[in-house]
Amino acid sequence: MSNTNNRIVSGMRPTGRLHLGHYFGVLVNWIKIQEDNECFFFVADWHAMTSEYSDPRRIKGFVPDLVKDWIAAGLDPEKCTIFHQSQVKEHAELHLILSMLTPVGWLERNPTYKEMRQALTQKDLATYGFLGYPVLMAADILMYKSTLVPVGQDQLPHLELAREIARRFNYLNGEFFPEPEAMLTADAKLPGLDGRKMSKSYNNGIFLGESADEMRPKVMTMLTDSNRLRKADPGDPEICNLYPYHKLLTGADKCAEIEAGCRDASWGCVDCKKLLADNMAKFLEPMHERRAKLDENPDIVWQILAEGTAKARARAQENMEIIREKVGFNF
Amino acid sequence: MSNTNNRIVSGMRPTGRLHLGHYFGVLVNWIKIQEDNECFFFVADWHAMTSEYSDPRRIKGFVPDLVKDWIAAGLDPEKCTIFHQSQVKEHAELHLILSMLTPVGWLERNPTYKEMRQALTQKDLATYGFLGYPVLMAADILMYKSTLVPVGQDQLPHLELAREIARRFNYLNGEFFPEPEAMLTADAKLPGLDGRKMSKSYNNGIFLGESADEMRPKVMTMLTDSNRLRKADPGDPEICNLYPYHKLLTGADKCAEIEAGCRDASWGCVDCKKLLADNMAKFLEPMHERRAKLDENPDIVWQILAEGTAKARARAQENMEIIREKVGFNF
Ligand code: SF4
Ligand code: SF4
Repeated sequence: MSNTNNRIVSGMRPTGRLHLGHYFGVLVNWIKIQEDNECFFFVADWHAMTSEYSDPRRIKGFVPDLVKDWIAAGLDPEKCTIFHQSQVKEHAELHLILSMLTPVGWLERNPTYKEMRQALTQKDLATYGFLGYPVLMAADILMYKSTLVPVGQDQLPHLELAREIARRFNYLNGEFFPEPEAMLTADAKLPGLDGRKMSKSYNNGIFLGESADEMRPKVMTMLTDSNRLRKADPGDPEICNLYPYHKLLTGADKCAEIEAGCRDASWGCVDCKKLLADNMAKFLEPMHERRAKLDENPDIVWQILAEGTAKARARAQENMEIIREKVGFNF
Repeated sequence: MSNTNNRIVSGMRPTGRLHLGHYFGVLVNWIKIQEDNECFFFVADWHAMTSEYSDPRRIKGFVPDLVKDWIAAGLDPEKCTIFHQSQVKEHAELHLILSMLTPVGWLERNPTYKEMRQALTQKDLATYGFLGYPVLMAADILMYKSTLVPVGQDQLPHLELAREIARRFNYLNGEFFPEPEAMLTADAKLPGLDGRKMSKSYNNGIFLGESADEMRPKVMTMLTDSNRLRKADPGDPEICNLYPYHKLLTGADKCAEIEAGCRDASWGCVDCKKLLADNMAKFLEPMHERRAKLDENPDIVWQILAEGTAKARARAQENMEIIREKVGFNF
């Protein structure tokens, strides 16, 4: 399937500020596909509730921040529909209808569920809603009759479930939902500043909203090739934590220079970090400018979200009418 | 808890015509409690979907029939609110919110779920929605802040789950839901005409909407004490299939006479059946009159349902506002 002229739905959970990992893992692709597809991007606050159910009030504050991060990063509300999941109640209705025809065995076999259940630590995630996460995700996707869904490798089983649910609905109630195909997004594999997985809980990422002044000292203390203790020691960019950032932010020619200079010890880590910080500042600058504009009037973000939500809701209502008719619940 | 001045919510699934078992098991109680409680009785069509998901279109036709049966039996829309579950979308929303905080283990331990899963025969009932039946039931009940719920013995575990869910919600999000108490309805234990459990699938019941002409031959072929082959043989009302019907439809004095006459063989089964048929006709007559009135204008039932649904919806919206605020989803 080509990557143009598709209807695409994708969401993010509002659980914290976005960092470079989110940008290169997800957003960079969203920004690209909004150009020649019909895109719906949503703030998945009901999904956030699966993990935050013990204090769901934490979610609210992250909702406008997420939208601000998206727009600052380059999502354009003129080109895509940005909406708020919990404000399109039809998602809850479709979720309920799909729950009736989804075998519980399909969900229990879901690798994410099995893993998480085994890894349960502080939070008791084994809730009914957590088990049904893929059903809600199927409702989100199918509601708009999406044809394509951007997913990382780890999300593939969820999409497969959405496809099976679509197939089962169509079989029982007559053809309606297209089976959405996967748009596999390349895994950006951006490590955290300390070399561990980039994660909110380790606080080892660069946030998209960070100023150059906050970002620079973080870059200067990044972990590099730990075998290279002095500048005279040759280094290996392949095991250096910094180099993947250069590959994304520094041109290919310069990268080749860095790689050679690192290996023959003619280029030092301090210079390497300074260069990265400079390039990162340049990369973040247009985001900061857009963000500053949004900050001038905090209502703008809510307005964008309200307008997108109204658009999405109209479409969801239109499709729900047909879905209700299909299942004979059109009263 | 006294049985007056409570807020009471109860529903029935629209899956077929109501029979005498429904009347004496459920309706007789509803008709009583509508007098001095605030009652919400609902057509549980989303619940019906759990078993009818492979052909949910069958449900639609049963919706007005159910309401007609209720009103014919004596529910008074002036005294209680009769509403349509799937037309109050807030139930789907509350169901989704409650699903996030309900441990899946609570549901797996539910005896009804365990039993049904073991008894799976023609229909694959082990769906996600079937596992979550008690969550939807909790949403139905808690939505109106019910204080009392009429339940049969077999429904007690479901109500206990609703209480646990209410408690957990209150603990996590602040006090809002009362813990609804059980109003245990006496098990009427009315056997089917053939002595088996009265059930739609055996077609062994007397329907509330049946005319005397349809009912009478059914009564005349009812199974009685099968040891009593001739009138001269003494019978035993305790093992006769007819006698429980007399206990409900024939006065206590006459019942004592029947019992004595059966035991000393002075009273025969044919007379016994004729008397039952007469009393049943008298019992059904006012229902038929009310039904005939409703049939004069089929819109009336839909009107009653629409008005009750509007009333229920207003209350549900009011409570959902507060629930959303409690979980911080008031945007
Ligand atoms: S020179 Fe650059 S790539 Fe080489 S080890 Fe140092 S920071 Fe890493
Ligand atoms: S006389 Fe009546 S109670 Fe006795 S066995 Fe016959 S039908 Fe039953």
